[in-house]
This record gives sequence, C-alpha cells and structure tokens, in this order.
Amino acid sequence: MEQRIIDEIENVVGKDGYSTRTADLYTYGFDASIFHNTPEIVVKPKSTEEVSEIMKIAYREGIPVVPRGAGTGLCGSAVPIRGGIVLTMQGMNRIKEISVADLWVDVEAGCVYNDLNAELSKHGFFFPPSPGSGEACQVGGMVATNASGMRAVKYGATRDFVLGLTFVKSDGEIVRSGTRTIKDSSGYQLARLMVGSEGTLGVITEITFKLTAKPKFSASCLCGFDSLAEAGECIAAFIAKPLIPASCELMDNVSISAVNRARGNPLPDVNSLIIVEVDGESDEIVRRDLKIIEEIAMGIGAISVTPSFDAAEIARWTDARKSVMTSLSALKPGFSSVSLADDMGVPVSKVPQAVKAFQEIAEKYRVTVATYGHAADGNLHTKMLIDPTDKDEWERGIRAVEEIFDVCIALGGTVTGEHGVGIAKAPSFQKERASVLSSIVAIKKAMDPKNILNPGKLEQWEGPILTHLRYPCPGVGCRDLRENGCPCGQSD
Amino acid sequence: MEQRIIDEIENVVGKDGYSTRTADLYTYGFDASIFHNTPEIVVKPKSTEEVSEIMKIAYREGIPVVPRGAGTGLCGSAVPIRGGIVLTMQGMNRIKEISVADLWVDVEAGCVYNDLNAELSKHGFFFPPSPGSGEACQVGGMVATNASGMRAVKYGATRDFVLGLTFVKSDGEIVRSGTRTIKDSSGYQLARLMVGSEGTLGVITEITFKLTAKPKFSASCLCGFDSLAEAGECIAAFIAKPLIPASCELMDNVSISAVNRARGNPLPDVNSLIIVEVDGESDEIVRRDLKIIEEIAMGIGAISVTPSFDAAEIARWTDARKSVMTSLSALKPGFSSVSLADDMGVPVSKVPQAVKAFQEIAEKYRVTVATYGHAADGNLHTKMLIDPTDKDEWERGIRAVEEIFDVCIALGGTVTGEHGVGIAKAPSFQKERASVLSSIVAIKKAMDPKNILNPGKLEQWEGPILTHLRYPCPGVGCRDLRENGCPCGQSD
Repeated sequence: MEQRIIDEIENVVGKDGYSTRTADLYTYGFDASIFHNTPEIVVKPKSTEEVSEIMKIAYREGIPVVPRGAGTGLCGSAVPIRGGIVLTMQGMNRIKEISVADLWVDVEAGCVYNDLNAELSKHGFFFPPSPGSGEACQVGGMVATNASGMRAVKYGATRDFVLGLTFVKSDGEIVRSGTRTIKDSSGYQLARLMVGSEGTLGVITEITFKLTAKPKFSASCLCGFDSLAEAGECIAAFIAKPLIPASCELMDNVSISAVNRARGNPLPDVNSLIIVEVDGESDEIVRRDLKIIEEIAMGIGAISVTPSFDAAEIARWTDARKSVMTSLSALKPGFSSVSLADDMGVPVSKVPQAVKAFQEIAEKYRVTVATYGHAADGNLHTKMLIDPTDKDEWERGIRAVEEIFDVCIALGGTVTGEHGVGIAKAPSFQKERASVLSSIVAIKKAMDPKNILNPGKLEQWEGPILTHLRYPCPGVGCRDLRENGCPCGQSD
Repeated sequence: MEQRIIDEIENVVGKDGYSTRTADLYTYGFDASIFHNTPEIVVKPKSTEEVSEIMKIAYREGIPVVPRGAGTGLCGSAVPIRGGIVLTMQGMNRIKEISVADLWVDVEAGCVYNDLNAELSKHGFFFPPSPGSGEACQVGGMVATNASGMRAVKYGATRDFVLGLTFVKSDGEIVRSGTRTIKDSSGYQLARLMVGSEGTLGVITEITFKLTAKPKFSASCLCGFDSLAEAGECIAAFIAKPLIPASCELMDNVSISAVNRARGNPLPDVNSLIIVEVDGESDEIVRRDLKIIEEIAMGIGAISVTPSFDAAEIARWTDARKSVMTSLSALKPGFSSVSLADDMGVPVSKVPQAVKAFQEIAEKYRVTVATYGHAADGNLHTKMLIDPTDKDEWERGIRAVEEIFDVCIALGGTVTGEHGVGIAKAPSFQKERASVLSSIVAIKKAMDPKNILNPGKLEQWEGPILTHLRYPCPGVGCRDLRENGCPCGQSD
C-alpha cells in the first residue's frame, strides 16, 4: 500500500489504530477456516465516523475492504482474498444503551456475544442465538452471517432479533436502517437484508437488538440410542407433538468416541445421543416437558434416558458436545479436523436420511467424518479428519463434501444454516441459490458499484475452493484461481 | 389499454382471469384508504407461472403493475395511481403443504389469514401476527407490508415468520428466495428484504412460514384508569418486570365513548383502559401472570381491574376494541373516520408522552382524534373524524397528521408500525428514513429497472398526499400531482 494512503488512514484512526507489521498482517489473514491470505493493512476504527472516513479513502482508491469480527468464522468469510484493508471491529465493543422499558439494546458491532448476554442477564433478558463460539464471537459477525446455534428452533436466529442497524456504505455514507421500535412497516426491511451479507454490502457498525425475557426454569435430558435413525425419529416425534425444545443437540458414534477418548469419557458409550433442553416459566412445565421427552424416547427404544436439573452435569454434557472439533483433531497425530461441510440445514424430518447419507459418503471416499449438530432445527455439522499436507486426502475430502452438499440440496435443505457462505461453500451456494443469483448480483452492484466490499466471495467466487489454503500442501494451491499467481503467496 | 395487449393477457389467464368492465375497474381502484384511482385492467392469475407471463408482457410494454391482496390496507399501497394492471391474488389462495415435522407451511399469497390459522390450529400451531383485518386480509399483503397486530410484542411481526418466498421480478423471472429449513445463512436475506416492499420489488406469489406452537392456556384482564398517563405507566411496568403479555390493547376516552355509544356500552365508562392478554403452557402460569398484572395495575391506581377466563367476555372486549373505526364514523352524521396517522410506532416507554401530544394536536387543529392500539409494542392508531367534503377540515386534518408524525419521529419512533407507507405516509416516511433513501432508490432500480412495479409510491412519491381522494371534495384533488390532470378523473 502506498505510504500516502497509509498516512491518510493514520490521520483518521491515529497511530494505534492501524498496523502494517508483518506479524499482524499474517494474523489477520486467518479466520477459523482452512483459508489464509495476507492483507496490506489492518485498521481498527473506534467509531462509525472513523469507518466512514476509511471507506471514503478505500472508495476513492478502489481498495478492497474486509470487515472482520472475532475471526471465529469457519468458511473464510473474513479472509481478505484480494488483500487490501482488514477492518477489525474489536475497538467498537461497547454496549451503548439498554432500554428495558422499550425492549431494545444498542450495541457496537465488535461487542462479544457473551459480554452482551452477561449485561442483559442483569435485567432478566437475553439474546438467545447461542453460537458455539459465544465466548469470542462478536455480534457484528453474527449479523453478517445470520449466526445462530443451539436455540434457534425455539427462539430464532440472529435475523429475528435485529430491529435496526447502522452500516457504512462502500462510498462512506452512514445509513441508519430499521428502528428502535418493536414494529416497523416503514419500507423495505433493509436491516434484515444486511443479515447474511458477510461484509459485501456495507460495514455494520452498530445494531439494535430486540430483548427477549429469559426463561425462569430449565432442565436437560440426555438420551442414548443404538442407531442414529432412532435418535432422528425421536426428534421428529418431539416436534410433531408439538414440543419445541429450547435446544436439541445430536452426536453420532464418531463424535461420541472422539470426545470420550480425548476428554475422559464424559458421555455414555452409545451409538448416538441427543441432549434435549427444555425451558419455561415454571418448574411444573419443565418437569411436564421432561416427562414427555422421556416417554417419547423410551417409546422409540432409547437405551439410556437421563433427565437432569443439575447445572454442573448439564454443563459437562454441553462442554463435551462443544469439544467435538478439537477432540476429533486429537484422534490421529498429524491429522486436522477441518471445516468444509460444516453447517448444512435440512428439514428436521430429513435428519436421519441426511446423516445416513453422510456416513455412506465418508465410507465411499475413505475419510473420517463426525456428524453432530442442532438437530431439532435440522442444522447438521460435519467435521472431516484429514492429513492437510496430503493432496490426495484433500481431493477425496472435497469430493465427499460436494456430495454431502448435493444430498442436502436434494433433501430441500441448504449448504449453510448458521456459519455463512464465505469461500468454502461458495460453489455449492451458487448451485443451491441459482434462482436468486441475478437479484443478488443486481443488489450487490447497486450497493457497492466499485466492488470493494469483501470482493470475490459469495456469488462472485469462481473456480475450485482449494486455494488460499492455510496449510502447506504440495499440489494444492492457488494455481487454479489466477494465472499469474495469487496474493496468498503460495505458488502451488 | 390496447386490444392486442388485452388479447395477450387473455391468452395467459383465460377469459375468466381478467376484467376490463367499468364496475370492476372502479372497485379495484380502492383499498381501505382515503385514495382511489382506476386501473386499465384487473388480472386474476392462478399460478406463479401466470404471474410470470403477465410480468413479461408488462415489462415489454412498460405497463405499471400493482399487486393486490384483499385491499384491506389503510394507506393506499394497493391503489394503482398510474393506472395499468391491478394483479389481484385472490385466485391463488391455496395452503399448498403443511410439514408439521419440519415446522413450515407453504401457502399462496392470496390465502386469507384466518383460513391459514384455521388449518394450522388442527395441528396445534398458529401464525401469530393477528392483524385487525384477519378475516379478510391475505398473507401476501401481510408480507408486503410486514403486517402485525395484537401479538407482536411477544411473538413478532410477519417478517419474523418468513422462512422463504417465491416472487416474480419485474421482467418475469421467478425467484425462490430463502429456504424450507429453520436456519439459513446462505447469503443475503432476500426473502426478508421483500417484507415491507409493498409490491415495488416483485410480485410475491408463495410464502413459506415457520410454524409456532399454539399456547395451551390464556386469559385476559381489563384495567380501567382515570388517565392515559396511568395506563401507559402500567404497560411500562409490565415490560420492566419483565412480563411480556401476548397482547395489550389501549383505548383512550374518545375511543371508549365512541364504542360505548355505537355498540351499547360494552366497556366500562372510564377515561382510558387496557385489555391485557397473557398466555402460556400451564393454567398456573397464566394465573400467576394475571395476578402480577392485577397487582401492578392496582399499585398504579387502576379504578377497575377485571380478570377473565371467559372466552365470550374476552371476545366482547376484543370486538369492542376492533370496532373503534366504525364506531367513530357513527358519531356524527356525514362525518367519516379516516386513516391518516393510523399506525405509528414509538418506544413503549414513550406511549404516554405520544398520546398526550396527539390530544394536544387534535385540540390545536380542532379535529376529533381517537387514539388506541397495541400499546405494549408501542404501536398506536389514531383515527380522525372529519367531514370529507369540507376542504378546510381536510387541511386542518392533514396539518394535525403531519405534527403527529413529527412527534413520533422525534420520540425515536416510526410513522408506520404495521400498515405500511403507501401514499398516506410517503412524505413522512421520506423524512423519517432520510438516511436509507439512497440505498432504497438503488435497490429499487436494480430490481425494477423499468419502474413498472407499483410505481410512484414510497421513496418515489412527490408532492402533497391530498390527491386521488375517494371523496368528492371541492378544492381538494389532483391538481398538485399532475399538470395535465390525473387518471383518477377528479378535475379538482
């Protein structure tokens, strides 16, 4: 980047508000995905106005800008594949105002999810989505990917809590969309359009979320099964009752074994299990719902049913469930658990069929695949254990992932339920959403005419995804992406 | 309209699928607002494919198209101010599929709200928004305006239930946006952008709504007060508890008197009242919440507190509340209750301040204004009683309405919480949403480059709103809109 531009950026954010040090550029080239690419500068704005000034410079100069939350994304949404500016929002992490009487909270995009909930909890409220990365992830990133987690089936995803948001357009214009009122029929739901836009339409700087009253009572039940089919049948039976659980986590045998091996057997030794959480306004209701769950699970042939009101026990189960990815990596030395087909959504009734297909695909391509996820809303994670330095492993893995995506699309599902498209899911996204592509292209062009906001992602991605890899892997690199090499520095 | 175009339309929808009869054109020139304008043809498609074919003709010929639900809108969204085609969706009213296991229902845009709920109710589910016009209004219109009603504070507005939708673009392309899964991070939330677009971005033909389990128990409580301030204070105290009611309707003294006079005193003779509904999963919870409501209301100085589990009594209260508009019209012969400032949203804590300001504005301009609404979500209705043939009445009324809107904007609110912008609120919408206008203009142009979809509304409206009036009123007409007269036929 030319020094005059760096000087201009320094004028906006000050000496401490940016970095061009190699170590920082390297660090901010990652998120939690398999991809990496180095930006030219990392900028840390402290206000919407500073974001606006930075965008004016970028717009004038045609410099790519990638807004970045905590970098917990699993599919490369925050990796700056065309270099340029990474705009890290960590300096904008204030909870600006809570209006309990009006049921809203105003928060800056860089605020961490758990920090927001700690504050809301003092008033009897919460922001329900509960992503797995809640300790680190930022609410701006959650909006940008429509993140969710365990509680979407009952409470909804991030989109359902956005009343309004402030964003900066590519040319620096500051836009305040939506309202601080519970209702809003005042034209297009622009704030909701921004949800899921992954930094391609504007830089989200502040959000107004609706508050949700925290349920007063909750309990969980762990049910073990001899087969995944039974676990899936059980979940479908809850929903059909209807008994909508607060959360319902599913784990298959690969996930259970990996966690039990890595973490000293926190879970029963069963083929598959579900951890069902119920909550409500009275102890009586929670106990009634637990009883219904036990009856349904036993009726379907569960081999263990363990209801619990013990917070410590429930936390052990939840931690075990959240440790699948790291536990899997510990299974084989030199192997890594990679996120490729990481968050497909299928109709709930199709969960057993989808999981069975994933297992067959894993066998066909000789890769280890763990399946788990938020099964009551049809949201399934797979993690693949591969040697990331082995070209053949990658190629079999990628073919397996493509087939997994195809299965989900064929079942009426989506390739991404809660993590976003990024790079990893871009080709399958384009296949799944063929009918919306022309609208998306038109809207992107209207909102970002110079194509500087997180360019090259989503509908713009071209070619195979095995490029910009964070792993050194001979034979797998960037050659396919650009004839003249790639800014990631990998020459293939 | 040229006969060759009519013939082409007949080829798509058949002889019974359209009308150019004067009586039909006249009828379809109205919605429930103060406006009227005559289209050139009314077309009644039976499928998304027919809509697509009609749009291809309109696109090629540059003919304006206004999609229309049941015409229950109160601000002119469905009035074809530039003539052309009115596309009535009543022929597409099927509930196509309910998947209880997957928690969704697929429904055509022309399906009536109550019909959908009657069907969902059989399975223990419901679609909560509950608009006042539920017996007639269509779900497509609800999406197009982000309609809601009594239950938004607890359950959300229409936008919160849209998982996916099919729409036809201005050039006839059929787009399937969103999913049939509970979660969706697959790029821009295009389905949510369409919410509130009032027919200006595409013709919504089918919607996938998320199902919500119907609460098993409910009850209501009518609380009367000596002042509106106390009623408002009471609502704020519920929310702060937090006790989120299923609904909470407010009526002021003008509304109560009008209803009691027109309908034989169904309500207590108090200065103001609220009807609070609570629901939940057990009788115990509902009774507990009712008790909290009674205690709060008594503590604030309520002069009557009447809890009720009697469905017939509660229905009488609800009917009384829903009859404000018609009751008001019955107050003075020759006068009409008109919708102008009909659905402002303010932060809940600002309800007392807003209502007080409305009363002062009514006195200042010597107009009768009834205030009522869904107060727990800050959504306030006013209806104005005026002689619609008196130019001076209109002019005072319009000035009062402008001030009411300004008050709501100044309080951090919105000019429309649930009915949409249409014509009546267009100038105030442009003032309220100044910062989003450039984005909206860009998106509209991207999605409808020939500007044929409900043109001239929302951000495109220019000039005063007292044009295209359905009432004959010397001195009030269309002169301001177009120099060469107006297709509504009023020469001023």
